[in-house]
Amino acid sequence: MSPTLEEPAPDSSLEALVSQTLGAETSLELAGLLPVLVRDVGEIDWRLNEVLGSTYAQLTEAARYAVSTGGKRVRPLLMAATYRALGAESIAGIRSLAAAFQLIHTATLVHDDVIDHSETRRGQPSVLRAFGTPLAIVSGDYLFIRAFELAAEYPTPIILRCGESCADLAEGEVLQEASRFDLSSGREHYYRVIERKTAAIIAAALASIAEIAAAPAAVVDGLSAYGKSLGIAFQVRDDLLDTYGDPDLLGKPLFTDLREGNPTLLSLETYARLDARHQAEFEKLFQLRHKRTRHLLRLKELTDETDAAAVVAREAEQWSERAIRALDAVADGPYRRLLERLARGASERRF
Amino acid sequence: MSPTLEEPAPDSSLEALVSQTLGAETSLELAGLLPVLVRDVGEIDWRLNEVLGSTYAQLTEAARYAVSTGGKRVRPLLMAATYRALGAESIAGIRSLAAAFQLIHTATLVHDDVIDHSETRRGQPSVLRAFGTPLAIVSGDYLFIRAFELAAEYPTPIILRCGESCADLAEGEVLQEASRFDLSSGREHYYRVIERKTAAIIAAALASIAEIAAAPAAVVDGLSAYGKSLGIAFQVRDDLLDTYGDPDLLGKPLFTDLREGNPTLLSLETYARLDARHQAEFEKLFQLRHKRTRHLLRLKELTDETDAAAVVAREAEQWSERAIRALDAVADGPYRRLLERLARGASERRF
Repeated sequence: MSPTLEEPAPDSSLEALVSQTLGAETSLELAGLLPVLVRDVGEIDWRLNEVLGSTYAQLTEAARYAVSTGGKRVRPLLMAATYRALGAESIAGIRSLAAAFQLIHTATLVHDDVIDHSETRRGQPSVLRAFGTPLAIVSGDYLFIRAFELAAEYPTPIILRCGESCADLAEGEVLQEASRFDLSSGREHYYRVIERKTAAIIAAALASIAEIAAAPAAVVDGLSAYGKSLGIAFQVRDDLLDTYGDPDLLGKPLFTDLREGNPTLLSLETYARLDARHQAEFEKLFQLRHKRTRHLLRLKELTDETDAAAVVAREAEQWSERAIRALDAVADGPYRRLLERLARGASERRF
Repeated sequence: MSPTLEEPAPDSSLEALVSQTLGAETSLELAGLLPVLVRDVGEIDWRLNEVLGSTYAQLTEAARYAVSTGGKRVRPLLMAATYRALGAESIAGIRSLAAAFQLIHTATLVHDDVIDHSETRRGQPSVLRAFGTPLAIVSGDYLFIRAFELAAEYPTPIILRCGESCADLAEGEVLQEASRFDLSSGREHYYRVIERKTAAIIAAALASIAEIAAAPAAVVDGLSAYGKSLGIAFQVRDDLLDTYGDPDLLGKPLFTDLREGNPTLLSLETYARLDARHQAEFEKLFQLRHKRTRHLLRLKELTDETDAAAVVAREAEQWSERAIRALDAVADGPYRRLLERLARGASERRF
């Protein structure tokens, strides 16, 4: 299971992706880390594409396609930067684990798209659309399976933490299902969902990396808290972008959450701020199983009439600040400052 | 992860299930093993129900429901009997692994039912029917996740073999999808599918148990070959029961494979034996996406006109005989004779 890793070919699209994630206003210091990080993320990509090989070409193809459309590489970037912030000179010690977490993330996106009937993912047809329901379900399973094989390279407590965060993920998914079309589910339920669906796995990944780096307990806890807060900031910002984002930058249509009836922080805060008459209208439209464009635009119009968007934007920023404070336990240096930048980016990003 | 296992309550339905699996013509000697095996299977059931607990009740409920409708406990029975055949005095050493393999089997059934739109499983509503598509997909994922957590209790090579057999399973599933409605896919393809979908995981489970029991390589290989042949016998027999079984005994409607267009050994052998005119009729009906009862009955009628059923029944028996021969490496004793009986049962069973 220790591959003789050949030099990954330089990947200009990966460089663009990583540089985009770091954000436009990145200082010269952080920009200097870019080549190292692009190489790290490329190595993780290489490792996960390697384990996806199977004797049956179509399964490999669907799984690799899922990976290629499966995200902005925020998780691999976070994991590489965290390990380096703790003093590592290369990411060899965490390469497979980072690949495992990225595969788990990808698996859930593939299954989410089946559940939500989503046809687009990062500007391309989703696995569901490109390969059909049976292959989407099975390739999601396959991604989970290969992820666990990668995790099996690590000590048992790391495997178990990885498993627990996957269980959290599944739980987040069913909690979300339970509140679909239900605006009365409220903020507390919302936070339970995103803590499990988004934050838990990032927290688990970073805590595992701190343990592999033999960091003291305070650093493990700090990085876990950082990962959790950053994940929440990321998700809260995502809610906002679902209504106010640029679909070209996002690579997916707007109003997905509204259409699917997922109560977001934005819809919950809007609902709480409307007067009784508009509240009833908002709820009625939100509950429609098949929304037309005019319904979605009216929901946005009602949202515009409140200050919910500003409140939600501020709340995302507060989570970013919380993430940055949690880094106090980590020694200062360029990679810690990069982690701070990534936390800020989670609530500032436009894509 | 080492639970303080309380005495599992005696479970009369489990006793009926195990005794049914052993078959009616079980000798007095084997019947004497029944209480031990019922206890073993009960312990495995207990362990897997234990790990399915989650903070969100509905996920636990769906997962446990899947387990309760998820099979005849053939795999746990085989695993317990194999470990005891190698001299173990209790199944403590393999309890979690047996639970893991049963959870993996259950996970694939849940996802299969989503893919095949199956509404019934062992006489009860399938998870799909009882909980809906989103929860069926997520609870299948959850079953995989908990299975890997259980497997994580064992040494890395065991975890990896478990993972590889899961990858085989996924591959078998997509291979099957690729040949749906296609009678020209042929015997070789059929065997590739069932070796991966059914046989590989049983072979992996029994080989792992032999390794945990520190058995010599010849025994590990013999039990792997036994598991593989038994799995194939089981599946070939399953194909026959899909057309000629008793739906009440099976707990599911007949003609599922015909309806879904899965080429079985029975349909392939029938097709190969018909004259050109009837071959064309058989193929045309087989390829219908929505078959009416009269179509299914006509397919059965055409099958009846050939000796395909007898040929397939004989082929299942030959796999049982191959499984029994593979046990030569295992020392003789009551549990080895039980394993022989289970291999015979795989191609004789009516449920």
